[in-house]
Amino acid sequence: MQFQPILEDIVATLRPELGAQGQVADYIPALARVPAAQFGIALRTCGGEEAQAGDSATPFSIQSISKLFALTLGMRAMGERLWERIGREPSGNPFNSLVQLEAEQGTPRNPFINAGAIAVTDRLVSHGDPKAAMLELVSSLCNEPVHFDEEVAASEAETGFRNIALGNFMKSFGKIDNSVSTVLDAYFHHCAVRMTCQQLARATGFLCRDGRHPFSGEPLLTERQTRRINALMLTCGTYDAAGEFAFRIGLPCKSGVGGGIVAVVPDRLSLCVWSPALDATGNSLLGMHALELFTARTGLSIF
Amino acid sequence: MQFQPILEDIVATLRPELGAQGQVADYIPALARVPAAQFGIALRTCGGEEAQAGDSATPFSIQSISKLFALTLGMRAMGERLWERIGREPSGNPFNSLVQLEAEQGTPRNPFINAGAIAVTDRLVSHGDPKAAMLELVSSLCNEPVHFDEEVAASEAETGFRNIALGNFMKSFGKIDNSVSTVLDAYFHHCAVRMTCQQLARATGFLCRDGRHPFSGEPLLTERQTRRINALMLTCGTYDAAGEFAFRIGLPCKSGVGGGIVAVVPDRLSLCVWSPALDATGNSLLGMHALELFTARTGLSIF
Amino acid sequence: MQFQPILEDIVATLRPELGAQGQVADYIPALARVPAAQFGIALRTCGGEEAQAGDSATPFSIQSISKLFALTLGMRAMGERLWERIGREPSGNPFNSLVQLEAEQGTPRNPFINAGAIAVTDRLVSHGDPKAAMLELVSSLCNEPVHFDEEVAASEAETGFRNIALGNFMKSFGKIDNSVSTVLDAYFHHCAVRMTCQQLARATGFLCRDGRHPFSGEPLLTERQTRRINALMLTCGTYDAAGEFAFRIGLPCKSGVGGGIVAVVPDRLSLCVWSPALDATGNSLLGMHALELFTARTGLSIF
Amino acid sequence: MQFQPILEDIVATLRPELGAQGQVADYIPALARVPAAQFGIALRTCGGEEAQAGDSATPFSIQSISKLFALTLGMRAMGERLWERIGREPSGNPFNSLVQLEAEQGTPRNPFINAGAIAVTDRLVSHGDPKAAMLELVSSLCNEPVHFDEEVAASEAETGFRNIALGNFMKSFGKIDNSVSTVLDAYFHHCAVRMTCQQLARATGFLCRDGRHPFSGEPLLTERQTRRINALMLTCGTYDAAGEFAFRIGLPCKSGVGGGIVAVVPDRLSLCVWSPALDATGNSLLGMHALELFTARTGLSIF
Repeated sequence: MQFQPILEDIVATLRPELGAQGQVADYIPALARVPAAQFGIALRTCGGEEAQAGDSATPFSIQSISKLFALTLGMRAMGERLWERIGREPSGNPFNSLVQLEAEQGTPRNPFINAGAIAVTDRLVSHGDPKAAMLELVSSLCNEPVHFDEEVAASEAETGFRNIALGNFMKSFGKIDNSVSTVLDAYFHHCAVRMTCQQLARATGFLCRDGRHPFSGEPLLTERQTRRINALMLTCGTYDAAGEFAFRIGLPCKSGVGGGIVAVVPDRLSLCVWSPALDATGNSLLGMHALELFTARTGLSIF
Repeated sequence: MQFQPILEDIVATLRPELGAQGQVADYIPALARVPAAQFGIALRTCGGEEAQAGDSATPFSIQSISKLFALTLGMRAMGERLWERIGREPSGNPFNSLVQLEAEQGTPRNPFINAGAIAVTDRLVSHGDPKAAMLELVSSLCNEPVHFDEEVAASEAETGFRNIALGNFMKSFGKIDNSVSTVLDAYFHHCAVRMTCQQLARATGFLCRDGRHPFSGEPLLTERQTRRINALMLTCGTYDAAGEFAFRIGLPCKSGVGGGIVAVVPDRLSLCVWSPALDATGNSLLGMHALELFTARTGLSIF
Repeated sequence: MQFQPILEDIVATLRPELGAQGQVADYIPALARVPAAQFGIALRTCGGEEAQAGDSATPFSIQSISKLFALTLGMRAMGERLWERIGREPSGNPFNSLVQLEAEQGTPRNPFINAGAIAVTDRLVSHGDPKAAMLELVSSLCNEPVHFDEEVAASEAETGFRNIALGNFMKSFGKIDNSVSTVLDAYFHHCAVRMTCQQLARATGFLCRDGRHPFSGEPLLTERQTRRINALMLTCGTYDAAGEFAFRIGLPCKSGVGGGIVAVVPDRLSLCVWSPALDATGNSLLGMHALELFTARTGLSIF
Repeated sequence: MQFQPILEDIVATLRPELGAQGQVADYIPALARVPAAQFGIALRTCGGEEAQAGDSATPFSIQSISKLFALTLGMRAMGERLWERIGREPSGNPFNSLVQLEAEQGTPRNPFINAGAIAVTDRLVSHGDPKAAMLELVSSLCNEPVHFDEEVAASEAETGFRNIALGNFMKSFGKIDNSVSTVLDAYFHHCAVRMTCQQLARATGFLCRDGRHPFSGEPLLTERQTRRINALMLTCGTYDAAGEFAFRIGLPCKSGVGGGIVAVVPDRLSLCVWSPALDATGNSLLGMHALELFTARTGLSIF
């Protein structure tokens, strides 16, 4: 399949809609001032073919997409024991809700809601330096040096009262081992990783390769672990819109409030779309639209 | 692929475990007295090839698998308007919970929890006779006459206080148009449909055929509607274990407390497993195990 | 103290406000058509002195005030065993909520929320005829024959979906012994008792007399049981406004959506106010105002 | 009435039960090592008469009783505007729950649950130095210098993850103006005030004197504000046992996990009991028993 013309076509189709609808995340200044009228798309196949169009080389804040890499680090470090403190089912509640956490004694439903990613990060703190580990992993995965946006990390820390509440709430149930502020410092940095669509399309390549590194082919996760992540992406990867994504797009996806969405076609390719304006569920509006066009044009849905 | 030996092999593998673990549903006598040590499996490919093994010709109570057919009837009758009163996202709460319904003003999260199926049935009552429509649909789909187990239906009605509560609760929010007792009479009968693995494997054939009738090929649903159902099965089809099913089995599934589970491999085949003993999530224990073996042997997972 | 001039003065003070604010309960026609611009007040002291003013002889639907008499019947029939299925603490949730009931396995928080009164009524059904018992009790207490408003009872039954839900929900937890429809028939009739302010002021006289009948002086409840009821009225008697009542009025009160409120000054008197227009908490707006004026003028608050 | 012999008699009656039942609070070492077998009681009448018995001169950690004084400071500083951010109704949930706070957008139900007291303390931070203000108030009220137990305050801070969560959660809703750590530092110190039964019996004297200082007679609060506090104590002062206290004791009370309970007989006296072993609701077991004996002997219940 010729992907380059398809991506270019998607960019052309969406151009008239750029910035017309949706809302850029505005809870921190560094995100609020990102111009809405941007759109990028990139993919990389299992065979190493690449295609990209639009603002695919513009770096953006990956935000919750980092939960995917934190989970990968956690599974590598701890294997099945990671799940002793984190569930694997959809939450049915907003991504930053504390209600379920109270009923379930501090155990978050899955690693893709904030509480779950904070719990994963706590496990990473116990196993080393999670900030260094994150940069090392994503830099290796996309074959280029990747950095934190320190301004974003600092802003997240300054205004992240809900996340501080989540961390301390779990700690009150004995489910966080390390200092909450150390854990959150790493968590906020993870959210503040800056990458482009091209980099993310490359970096998520291990998810369509049964866990093998997208460039070296070295096993990063087992096939079974990789399937676990893909299944979690499909059922829990897109805030409260997992059902809608499964239907409209039909691919394992993980989104972030920076406007990025990564998607995986197992055994075929990994791709990334980005456009900063979000819909009411916190997912990139044009990103979703683009993924829908992509699966419609290529027939690459899992259903 | 030769499916018959695979199914036979699965039966042989599971035979030592028959009845060893899990619990037969015991909330009504007619279900409680079903012997636990039974297991059946059957499939039918898009090409019409069939395979079956074990107790694949033994009829059982399809219970919540009927929600799949009720939803199909609802989509056929109402199209997109069906979704005005029913959500399409995972619930994160037990299948018979009223909590979320109170917070969300009587709108159930999805059509596969009890409240959602009751709401679908209410819509069917407004459009005709839902009991006749159900039997007509499933009989046509499996090309054999199918009947209700009236004893089961009567037992459900006698002890279905939680469902009566759900129906009246939604009605108190103005979300049920018809008499709750009429709606529940149909709902309880739907749960009491009696079918075999073979019949269910055939009947769910429209879900792997983009909505076309498994025998006549006539369009029953659009491709898009069919994708909607498959996506809902994957994210919400198996009570509180959707994440676990997505990971372990990786196929759209719908289970019932009678011990049946149907699964769909889009564009390939539909299958049904059955074994009455359930695990703590209300899903057939050996059924899940069998599906896991099936996807492992065939590689037919969507991930 | 001369009570008659005080009551007349309260009527004169409130006359300009009659019907100006608030909303008559409109969930059933028989309540909705009650003219808002009515106000009555009546009291009876422990010494037998009576005073009344305004529309004190106009009968109205006592609604939730009946929960007081149902509780009295329950305590007489069962003593302490009544509390095996009903709590005695404030609920913190709306009077007709199902949420807490789910978390607490079908045990209602107190006998003054709907679920609690339905549970009490179930106990009464097990001990005899709760409809006859109610009429007998209130007729005896106010020394005049009292009747149900059958139109109101029928309307409640027709539209009482939330209460049907509550009854069946508790039954699903095994906390209702009798047929839900029998229990609710009695419950709806209890709500439909028709009484005047004068009658209610007399009938609640046992609550300021340590449990002795207001006319015969016969012990109806023990002193301790009476204290229990007064304490429950203060902490749970006025829907979600118990704190506000305790502050503004400082007396044990029980209100109903018919616009009546009864109040008890232990060892002194019992009184009843009535005005149909309700505030947002479901309590009579002028009724609350009148009670506030009464305690201000007489100094008869418990604080 | 001769109070001294009554108190002595209560001490004699309870002596055999000392330390026999209940559990000393053990969430911080400084509380856990308090010997259980202690009991003190003291009162002071509006006329200035004092009585005390048992360990009435032993200082203890007043814990949540401090919420009473913080509320008093808040009402003095802000008047009615205090209630813009804090409710006045029973919560129906555990004292440290976050669930209700999420549903109600960061507004705590009342000033006697932890979230409410933290919100009050935030208001105090905006108006001055809440630690100095607290010591000044209670020292003045009991006419003796009162101090913080710095070890307790430090322990609370070290292990107070739930309270840190509550503070940050409210801040995430914009309901806390100051730095959460500043607010909590004051809150933890307030909980760590050390007083004796005699001191608390004196200090709460303004609550039985319509708001006038127990020694100087200067107005501290208005009569109406004082009534507000007493009403709040009765409906919300004793964790999840407000209904039980209202029934068994029938007085406005405020308890703390240090084992102290203060009670108010309006226009008559204020009293304090203390015994470290708590029942399942977090209230002093012998303290409740003593108050019950006291109201039984003196007839000084409000019902």
